[in-house]
Amino acid sequence: METFFSFLSKRVDDCSSLLCVGLDPHPADLPAPTADAARTFCLRLINATGRYAAAFKPNAAFFELYGPDGWSALKDVIAAVQEESNRLGSMIPVILDAKRGDIASTAEAYAKSAFEHLGAHAITLNPYLGKDSIDPFLAYKEKGAFLLCKTSNPGASDLQDLTVDRGALTEESPSTVHRPRSIPLYEHIAHLAQSWNTGNNIGLVVGATQPEALTRVRSAAPDLWFLVPGVGTQGGDLETALRSGLRADGRGMLINVSRGIARSADPAKAAAQMRDEIINVKYALKH
Amino acid sequence: METFFSFLSKRVDDCSSLLCVGLDPHPADLPAPTADAARTFCLRLINATGRYAAAFKPNAAFFELYGPDGWSALKDVIAAVQEESNRLGSMIPVILDAKRGDIASTAEAYAKSAFEHLGAHAITLNPYLGKDSIDPFLAYKEKGAFLLCKTSNPGASDLQDLTVDRGALTEESPSTVHRPRSIPLYEHIAHLAQSWNTGNNIGLVVGATQPEALTRVRSAAPDLWFLVPGVGTQGGDLETALRSGLRADGRGMLINVSRGIARSADPAKAAAQMRDEIINVKYALKH
Repeated sequence: METFFSFLSKRVDDCSSLLCVGLDPHPADLPAPTADAARTFCLRLINATGRYAAAFKPNAAFFELYGPDGWSALKDVIAAVQEESNRLGSMIPVILDAKRGDIASTAEAYAKSAFEHLGAHAITLNPYLGKDSIDPFLAYKEKGAFLLCKTSNPGASDLQDLTVDRGALTEESPSTVHRPRSIPLYEHIAHLAQSWNTGNNIGLVVGATQPEALTRVRSAAPDLWFLVPGVGTQGGDLETALRSGLRADGRGMLINVSRGIARSADPAKAAAQMRDEIINVKYALKH
Repeated sequence: METFFSFLSKRVDDCSSLLCVGLDPHPADLPAPTADAARTFCLRLINATGRYAAAFKPNAAFFELYGPDGWSALKDVIAAVQEESNRLGSMIPVILDAKRGDIASTAEAYAKSAFEHLGAHAITLNPYLGKDSIDPFLAYKEKGAFLLCKTSNPGASDLQDLTVDRGALTEESPSTVHRPRSIPLYEHIAHLAQSWNTGNNIGLVVGATQPEALTRVRSAAPDLWFLVPGVGTQGGDLETALRSGLRADGRGMLINVSRGIARSADPAKAAAQMRDEIINVKYALKH
């Protein structure tokens, strides 16, 4: 069976790229703050950068903003990635950045919305409510779920960096030989995610702004794909991020760039350059 | 200036009720899984229970499920609470249960969606991304934000019960005289929320299923309003919950009931009984 991550790996092979293009139609970047303008903005970006994109990541907030019209635009944007994929002859996955998190039947409704109604291939989720809030998404075995682990914003440290005592926990990460008793909360989530990933459909969101966190998370979750925001505009360094977070097989990271491409005078060129930079850094790291 | 919590307190006085009626149109409870059916379901519930409701709480997931039509229905449902309020001559606040959480300009977009587009008076938020993910909501000074603290689901223990080391933290809760170094993560969030509440617009979501958690959170956040799910269907006991969580002034808790009212043969009667039970328990606790 194809899982989201086998689908993603195939696309990464096809396009030699680890670039995820963020589709964030900030009202300030639009000629007018309307759903139509948001749709047009994204469609142009998809058309310009599709060739270089391992994945696209629309953020739900910038569509919800416009109510029903925005929701229609979001659906159109996801469909447009499908059309661009057909044009290119290589399917490009769509990760819906929604950061949802709710319980039981409510989580089921969110999963249905993202995967069935909108047609996204993966979603970002907030793990604060625990495993049973993730399960309804994992029940879609061919879809993916990226759990927030270490985000790229300054406030991330308020909770994510807290030191947690794992004294009472013994089973979640049998693969870890050295298990310190106290670790940051974000690292604990990485251990949980690695142990929950029995269906090969869990990834992690790990910001590039704190490379030491990337290193710790890679050590805790050696197999997982990371969705990595924060390179560029937010100050994260690409080479340091790749060195800290790439898997042994040279994959396992999707470098997300939103404003750095969307606000460029030539988004196609900016995306091509970013793809090439990633290739060059990967090459240098190997040699 | 009126804040959300002064608005809520006024309504609580008007209707002598601490009952929050959940508007969760589960597809299984509808004649057909459509946005129209979800709207009708909620409108009937609002009309039947408005008199007894200190607040209404629609959950966004059960509307998102239907895409643009669902989003329209959600807006209609919130508007219907306004109409019911006008009919009753007493404004009933609407808490949008959306559990959002994102950074900077993205959080601004979510806040605009909830407060300006949909017209909700308060929202539930996931605090995992930290203070800067909450700030754009707090910037709406007359609106409210309930932060997830201790949820009522079994998986809540995965993260929320972890013991965190507060050794490095000294400023977040100057009001606490006795400050143990290690406390559960949910209790730490309660301390943070109490210290962040400088604008009287923060509340907490604390489930009724673990009364000892209610007690700890009340001690950490003596001033805050709690939105309390989990009484009834999920097994939480009303009397124990009220005894554990009520503020010294006999307020500070909104007891949320969804299925227990919506699935009743006579929702008006079920809501009236719940309001009366709360009054009776409060009376017994005082005498």
